[in-house]
Amino acid sequence: MNKFSERMNGMKASDIRELLKLTARPEVISFAGGMPAPELFPVEEINAAFNAVMAENGKTALQYGQTEGWAPLRQQIADRMEKINSIKTAPSDVILTAGSQQGLDFCGKLFLNPGDVVIMESPSYLGAINAFNAYQPTYVEIPTDDNGMIMEELEKVLATTENVKLIYVIPDFQNPSGRTWPLERRQKFMEIVNKYEVNVIEDNPYGDLRFRGEFLPALKSLDTKGLVLYFGTFSKILSPGFRIGWICANEAIMEKLNLIAQAAVLQTATVNAMVVSKYLEMYDIDEHIAKILPVYKHRCELMISTMKETFPPEAKFTDPEGGLFTWVELPEYINTRDLAAKALEQNVAFVPGSGFYPNGGNNHCMRLNYSGQSDERIVEGVKRLAALIKEAL
Amino acid sequence: MNKFSERMNGMKASDIRELLKLTARPEVISFAGGMPAPELFPVEEINAAFNAVMAENGKTALQYGQTEGWAPLRQQIADRMEKINSIKTAPSDVILTAGSQQGLDFCGKLFLNPGDVVIMESPSYLGAINAFNAYQPTYVEIPTDDNGMIMEELEKVLATTENVKLIYVIPDFQNPSGRTWPLERRQKFMEIVNKYEVNVIEDNPYGDLRFRGEFLPALKSLDTKGLVLYFGTFSKILSPGFRIGWICANEAIMEKLNLIAQAAVLQTATVNAMVVSKYLEMYDIDEHIAKILPVYKHRCELMISTMKETFPPEAKFTDPEGGLFTWVELPEYINTRDLAAKALEQNVAFVPGSGFYPNGGNNHCMRLNYSGQSDERIVEGVKRLAALIKEAL
Repeated sequence: MNKFSERMNGMKASDIRELLKLTARPEVISFAGGMPAPELFPVEEINAAFNAVMAENGKTALQYGQTEGWAPLRQQIADRMEKINSIKTAPSDVILTAGSQQGLDFCGKLFLNPGDVVIMESPSYLGAINAFNAYQPTYVEIPTDDNGMIMEELEKVLATTENVKLIYVIPDFQNPSGRTWPLERRQKFMEIVNKYEVNVIEDNPYGDLRFRGEFLPALKSLDTKGLVLYFGTFSKILSPGFRIGWICANEAIMEKLNLIAQAAVLQTATVNAMVVSKYLEMYDIDEHIAKILPVYKHRCELMISTMKETFPPEAKFTDPEGGLFTWVELPEYINTRDLAAKALEQNVAFVPGSGFYPNGGNNHCMRLNYSGQSDERIVEGVKRLAALIKEAL
Repeated sequence: MNKFSERMNGMKASDIRELLKLTARPEVISFAGGMPAPELFPVEEINAAFNAVMAENGKTALQYGQTEGWAPLRQQIADRMEKINSIKTAPSDVILTAGSQQGLDFCGKLFLNPGDVVIMESPSYLGAINAFNAYQPTYVEIPTDDNGMIMEELEKVLATTENVKLIYVIPDFQNPSGRTWPLERRQKFMEIVNKYEVNVIEDNPYGDLRFRGEFLPALKSLDTKGLVLYFGTFSKILSPGFRIGWICANEAIMEKLNLIAQAAVLQTATVNAMVVSKYLEMYDIDEHIAKILPVYKHRCELMISTMKETFPPEAKFTDPEGGLFTWVELPEYINTRDLAAKALEQNVAFVPGSGFYPNGGNNHCMRLNYSGQSDERIVEGVKRLAALIKEAL
């Protein structure tokens, strides 16, 4: 009876969002979502920031505002990108989004005709694949190694593929693999991208969450031709429930993003942007990050060391320098969807790997999150998984 | 250098959003936006609701939540739709959106292939046209009279037009015309829609703002085949800065909207939904609406009576029973874009009418908003417009 559009044939439920429903049961040890640890949320500080906004500027906060978002926050974001990510930019090159997911949808709309090619790391972020699917592209996956995307493979694809409209990458603590691109690879990437002049989304939700090693410059900071759209967010360092992220890009792109945002949502919530801005004014977010970091570092190390102790040698996994995820590769004959079903029976949840490959396949991988569970639950959950993996061998 | 998608050729800046930038100057008397009066925002009550959410449930509020939105708010919305709009529904048939504008974007994505037909009242809401444009439809406009869409014309079009995927209507205090459909026309509409089985968006942002006459049942309450998607919002009765609206539709549609929301934005901000829910629990929103209503009624009557006194007889305008807008038709040789430019020189802003016609033309109309300005400014602004119109005759 309802006549839906053709694009709906390519849209399916995200494994993660469906799992989140099940993992709401308190007995489930969830390594599934990319949830920040709620006990670390600065609830009192955010409450104080909200009260200050209401007292000083309540009527403005509750009213419509500009499509690009609250100007003082865009200034604060521009300042912080320069300080932390070596990105020299202006507030006029920043537009707020309701989390980075909205930015992905906007960019699908901005760049993609049906059949256009999107290049991604193999594997890549499931949510990006879902966002782009609404615009019916085809995908080319670039193989990766422990240092991220393999640049020779990227160049081969760009030299031989028509209609490449977008390259989507996560160079820092990638979702799902936890891998980080070293400096030389970032430089090589920008060299190739400059040669072929393709737009790039650099998605950086986890960059602030580095446990060890040195901060590396953003691709955007190496971008001399205005090709890179840099995505940032407050979801992992402050609160995902506020839905405040941003895109930083040059003027020609920003003008189009503004049209898209107007049509899709008018604007990001005025009040949310003002409260985040006030929080940044009243408190030092880097102090807050310094409180979160050791907890996530400890949980990461605990998960990795428990996996080293209990997983069979056939299971390979990454040892991330930051972020929220580790990535496990099992022998190819083990199907992690089946494993996930068995694990859920034992109240352990993770995301099967195949959803992270835009062209499917790779049923033998899994993504594990360590940020959201207590020490005891991490150890117990990993042990249960280890037993299931051994059983499946 | 940037290779944008074809759909971007059809997307242009909204006159309203562009005007809003200019009207931020305090000396401008703005009849342009559809802004609620900020002095009527319940700032203290919303602050108290926020404090209560943080004290009782802060960690949940700042965390990710479900795509369809905070369950208690969806229950409250379902209850209120039954009480106020005679719509019998369940929370599972409600999904939260970041304002109704986001719902329009979701529905463009859900229903429209390029070239599909959208039917609209002539004129209709500019923001809906903008949202749908991203999905490259064609438009058929149905003529209207003082009682809204003319049903004989609708039936003629449906009988002779292929690929009609969506009918978009605002039966209560329409934007931009201020007109309301009487009961018989609503019944006739549903009869026709049932015959041709086309999906309908019933956009009802202003329904609660009735100054006189009796509440009329929503189309959705007369929908026996699950064809109508009912859009509601807290923007005009509580706060647009919170960006909380909703869509109510049947299960088959809801399932698809959930996929679209997942991919486009993951979810509406958890904290915003919880604060609105808490506000509804702590306070009586109908008491708040009862405080707003007499102010808007007075401003409406003042604008209409000043127009009657000062406008030349060649200017025809609607006398709305509620909502935020009146619609002025001038002789066809007067171009209201030129008039708007001259008015801005005299610090008066309004939205020229042509943007409200999806197929353009109709350059002799204008939309005036009365809710956002004080008595003095309404009288002064209307007088300045009257002088300009007389000059243009």
